[in-house]
Amino acid sequence: MDQLFYPKSAVVIGVSESPDNLARTIVENLLEFQYQGKIHLLGKEEGTLFGRKIYTSLDDFNDKVDVAVILTPAPTVPGLLEACGKKKIRWVILETGGFSEYSKEGAQLEKEVLGVARKWRIRLVGPNGIGIVNTENGFVVPFVGMKRGPAREGKVSILAQSGGVSFTYFNLLSSAHVGISKMVSMGNKLDLDEIDYLRYLARDPQTEIIGLYLESIGKGRALMEAAQTTSKPIVLHKANIGESSRQIAKLHTAALANDDQIVETALKQANIIRTKDFRSFVNAVNVLSLPAMKGDRLVVLSRSGGIAIMAADSAETHGFRLHPFTDEFQKQIHSYFRAKVIRPTNPLDLGDLFDFDLHIKILEKVLQIEAVDGILFQHGAIGEEMEPSRKLILTVKELSFRYQKPIALCYLTEEEELAFVKRTIDYPIFAEPSDALSALAISRDHTFRKNLARKKPPFHRVNRTKVRHLLRKAEIEKRDPLLPEAFEVLRAYGIPVAGYELIHDKKELVSAFQKMGKPVALKVISPEVSHKSDRGGVLLDIGDPSEAGKAFEKIKKAGGKTFSGVLVQKMIPEGMEVILGAKRDPSFGPVVLFGFGGIYVEILKESSIRVAPINRLEAEEMILEVKASAILKGARGKNPLDIKALVESLLRLSQLMIDFPEIEGIDINPVIVQEKGAVAVDARIAFAKVRESKFQ
Amino acid sequence: MDQLFYPKSAVVIGVSESPDNLARTIVENLLEFQYQGKIHLLGKEEGTLFGRKIYTSLDDFNDKVDVAVILTPAPTVPGLLEACGKKKIRWVILETGGFSEYSKEGAQLEKEVLGVARKWRIRLVGPNGIGIVNTENGFVVPFVGMKRGPAREGKVSILAQSGGVSFTYFNLLSSAHVGISKMVSMGNKLDLDEIDYLRYLARDPQTEIIGLYLESIGKGRALMEAAQTTSKPIVLHKANIGESSRQIAKLHTAALANDDQIVETALKQANIIRTKDFRSFVNAVNVLSLPAMKGDRLVVLSRSGGIAIMAADSAETHGFRLHPFTDEFQKQIHSYFRAKVIRPTNPLDLGDLFDFDLHIKILEKVLQIEAVDGILFQHGAIGEEMEPSRKLILTVKELSFRYQKPIALCYLTEEEELAFVKRTIDYPIFAEPSDALSALAISRDHTFRKNLARKKPPFHRVNRTKVRHLLRKAEIEKRDPLLPEAFEVLRAYGIPVAGYELIHDKKELVSAFQKMGKPVALKVISPEVSHKSDRGGVLLDIGDPSEAGKAFEKIKKAGGKTFSGVLVQKMIPEGMEVILGAKRDPSFGPVVLFGFGGIYVEILKESSIRVAPINRLEAEEMILEVKASAILKGARGKNPLDIKALVESLLRLSQLMIDFPEIEGIDINPVIVQEKGAVAVDARIAFAKVRESKFQ
Repeated sequence: MDQLFYPKSAVVIGVSESPDNLARTIVENLLEFQYQGKIHLLGKEEGTLFGRKIYTSLDDFNDKVDVAVILTPAPTVPGLLEACGKKKIRWVILETGGFSEYSKEGAQLEKEVLGVARKWRIRLVGPNGIGIVNTENGFVVPFVGMKRGPAREGKVSILAQSGGVSFTYFNLLSSAHVGISKMVSMGNKLDLDEIDYLRYLARDPQTEIIGLYLESIGKGRALMEAAQTTSKPIVLHKANIGESSRQIAKLHTAALANDDQIVETALKQANIIRTKDFRSFVNAVNVLSLPAMKGDRLVVLSRSGGIAIMAADSAETHGFRLHPFTDEFQKQIHSYFRAKVIRPTNPLDLGDLFDFDLHIKILEKVLQIEAVDGILFQHGAIGEEMEPSRKLILTVKELSFRYQKPIALCYLTEEEELAFVKRTIDYPIFAEPSDALSALAISRDHTFRKNLARKKPPFHRVNRTKVRHLLRKAEIEKRDPLLPEAFEVLRAYGIPVAGYELIHDKKELVSAFQKMGKPVALKVISPEVSHKSDRGGVLLDIGDPSEAGKAFEKIKKAGGKTFSGVLVQKMIPEGMEVILGAKRDPSFGPVVLFGFGGIYVEILKESSIRVAPINRLEAEEMILEVKASAILKGARGKNPLDIKALVESLLRLSQLMIDFPEIEGIDINPVIVQEKGAVAVDARIAFAKVRESKFQ
Repeated sequence: MDQLFYPKSAVVIGVSESPDNLARTIVENLLEFQYQGKIHLLGKEEGTLFGRKIYTSLDDFNDKVDVAVILTPAPTVPGLLEACGKKKIRWVILETGGFSEYSKEGAQLEKEVLGVARKWRIRLVGPNGIGIVNTENGFVVPFVGMKRGPAREGKVSILAQSGGVSFTYFNLLSSAHVGISKMVSMGNKLDLDEIDYLRYLARDPQTEIIGLYLESIGKGRALMEAAQTTSKPIVLHKANIGESSRQIAKLHTAALANDDQIVETALKQANIIRTKDFRSFVNAVNVLSLPAMKGDRLVVLSRSGGIAIMAADSAETHGFRLHPFTDEFQKQIHSYFRAKVIRPTNPLDLGDLFDFDLHIKILEKVLQIEAVDGILFQHGAIGEEMEPSRKLILTVKELSFRYQKPIALCYLTEEEELAFVKRTIDYPIFAEPSDALSALAISRDHTFRKNLARKKPPFHRVNRTKVRHLLRKAEIEKRDPLLPEAFEVLRAYGIPVAGYELIHDKKELVSAFQKMGKPVALKVISPEVSHKSDRGGVLLDIGDPSEAGKAFEKIKKAGGKTFSGVLVQKMIPEGMEVILGAKRDPSFGPVVLFGFGGIYVEILKESSIRVAPINRLEAEEMILEVKASAILKGARGKNPLDIKALVESLLRLSQLMIDFPEIEGIDINPVIVQEKGAVAVDARIAFAKVRESKFQ
């Protein structure tokens, strides 16, 4: 992909002499950014633009071309691409719009375009984007005019679908003195997509931070893998959250978790930083260019007591601890104060000190406290103080890097001055305490997850052959493997299930009764009865063999035409009902779910989710992050229930989903958790409609 | 208070010729802002400052003085105040720090200061603030230098505790072309507090919007009343949330609700707009100067398709509906488009149109759609487009006021340009879509609550005399009225309670049994046993008279030395357990609480709260805002339970708290809700430790 970002020669297709011509802006940008490669121009009509000849055919010149940039009406694209292929151009940046994003006809045309590209082994950027920017070599081809002034070379690379969003980030980051290395407006991602670019940027020595704006995550699993294999931080703004998520509603637990819940957890698992708007994106990029926040011990220094309190509120919201000063330290600080009417606590109010050198002196003393992980330094100045404040900021920068601790500088001043220092000083400035603290929290959490070497999922020895056999059998019979096969599968994977026996008539029922000991539950086996209890297909707590006959008749009736037997199950003593589940997300692949059963699941709609495979820590987190897990830990003086057993079952469920891509989803509902053990009482397994290959 | 803000003459006390002298800045500010009243100077030593004489005693000049501004060391203040009193100065602005906020000695001194003030009937601003600003007459007395340039006269008045925060708001609002009328840095609020200033500003013809920054709400009830009696919007930034709330832990339900939950609900009830940081405060003030958003139907116009999507996400988050365009309307818009590769939907992507006149044309067409309540207009420009964009903004302003609909303008441009247009153009500009939409949501919600004429709480005829008698009896006996008096009180207020009888020996138990019909519950009455069930003081479901004797012995033993009887209660058939409660908040006075019982209350810690008295609508909201109320509405195909009965009981509970200030708290736990009716099964009442007078 180096050839795409660093081409030796390029052709711009769609150029004319007309001042309205959009493609001419592309040429202007290349000139403005002093691109040193060869530039060829191609148009419908011959002419001259910026002293260069406009050709009408790629055959009109002999030079080898690395990249073609096309901005012509959509219907002309397949033909032009054909010509590019013949010219052996391997990379095409297609900026034209009016394809699948616009109409059905456009989508058809897009398919055709892809066909031509595949045929000639052309790799495509776009369509419906504004192309590529590389500030290093000046290869800047958007059809919107850009100026070299605000755009500086730097360490952040941006991938975005929308052109407008790319530009906004470009401008905002430039305004914040954050340099851009590369930028791609990916458009419809017909061929190349974020994963391709991401893999390139992960290896690109110019790129240190990757910023992503996505309206959809088509290949979530690949995105996670790309993030997990690079040490470069990735900041992602995922938009289009409101889109009604395509739920795999087939299974009960599956429907509990919506797409965005999966996105949220997946990004956390991959340590991708998620932001929600322009400001939080820029703040995240900003804080990543500071030394990392390695813990949660914070000191707040503020020129105003009131703002110090606002900062303390925000610090608490973000889970920081305000590191207390020792008496000795307080005495030292106090000796600097003039009127001595302010207590030198943390947060520390510097309002009494008008000498900036003292601010710096105190700041350095705080940095020297080993336990302190980071500092919020709130400064404010208007009028005559603005000039010396610029020097102050440079000193703050020097100190932050010398002591290798982040100093989040929050500077309240006139907006014009703020704009000036942000653009000219190479140190991030936050507009207010809440911005600075959410940025520090990003740094802390990112560092924490990075250091937490992701532990491998444990490997359980299981009877895979048996499961394969069971699944194949059910598949041949063209039905989802309901009871009792689902139980067999779980057993093979070491997930405890309630003792059961499959019977077909009253006689078998009586003998099952005798073997199992009472009381028992009876459950119908019948493909047409999916929700058994709603249809009277479940009878609980049958303790008397004399009831059994009547019960069998009832169940049989409930089973309807497809009645194929009754599952006799030993009643499990009372406990807490939970649900374990798994499904296959179209983007992120296999995920496991945990939630509470009964009334909790329906009313509180609270569940947790992780992309599989999960490790032990993740399984534990899954359980504990659900509020109602307080019950498991032993609420109201009761003994705690067996969380460990649940963890074990979740891990095995995760392994099962990884091992058998043909399983679409699993719903173990309920699992009864007791003081010792957790036993599955009902379970369903559904087959995959999607293929594993989609997640590569 | 007019005299305080518009004094004819003022004396500044604490002035010296020294360039370090802080009080001289006060004089500088008065001169800078061209204050036209008389200015007298007072200091320890005679001298001259800015051509004015510094006197050493108030007796040295004869003029009548309206306001004294004091900035001298704390210990000198009582003496100076004494002198002010003799001089018949009625208003003193005390900017000195080092009082109760600093030390115990300071607190003592503060008391002394208040004593002197009361003696001379002096009203005090401060101490520990930076005084008052009135841009109208130039009475500007902070001890920090201010420039007339950025400060413009306007319609917003600001009350803040902290000086730094006041200044920051002053500067931020000036930067956003929002004029300030008056500003008070209230400091320690030793005498005058936010309620006093608020009442003045509510009548002040110069003030249209009131902004408040508070670190504590000492008189919450008075704040609510002040807000409810003015039509001027109040924006409040309440800081110091992290402070561990002083919980009245005596009652179970009381402890569920923390202070900030009360603050949150109280502000909503009083339609005070709560903001959480500088940005949201400024955005709120900004949106309030636009025409009001009268509903939730929104149109998004954006220069970028991507930003339009971000805006749509944010619109959904804030509960807006994107008003769909008719086919005809779409056709019309489409006719303006150049390349015709963008669909004219809502959100509408204007990316294809480079002619700003067309943007305006479309904007006006959208404004003409009657159903549309407001518009997010996202504009972006850099380079040459910045100049014509200024004109565009002025046109947007004109249209917004002509059509009386809010157009939240979000402008993405270079920061310097943004600072310039914000400061120079008298129309609010939001930095990004999420800011603009949260501002529009504020406007919509504020308008909604304003129009929703607050319905009066219903009046129930109750037996007040009986309750007074019961409470007095319990008071004389020096104990909280536990069972059975609590039941009697509830009954007198028409809150249904389970049938009961108080017995003292086995014989009475047997006869109670016969009267009541089985099964029954037995509950111990004993002052030393507060949590009855934890101590074995409750026996449920006793259906057999033969068990009764043994049960009585058990209960009696559980009651310990203070055993005074057993409450025999008819068992209530199963239902949902909820909790009704009430307590007296030290700031907001009586509040009522609602939550779910049993495991829900302990684990999910979810409850709702309202400041009493409540009306029917508020009682309904209280119940429905608790997630678990889905169960009451009839979850899992079950019949709905009697929410109406709960509403009725909440209303009566509210009235009880209003009628009897001596009640500190009431805990009705549980109330069993059934398909028909809701019956209190246990209840406790505690006496007030705080006096009603505190809430005035």
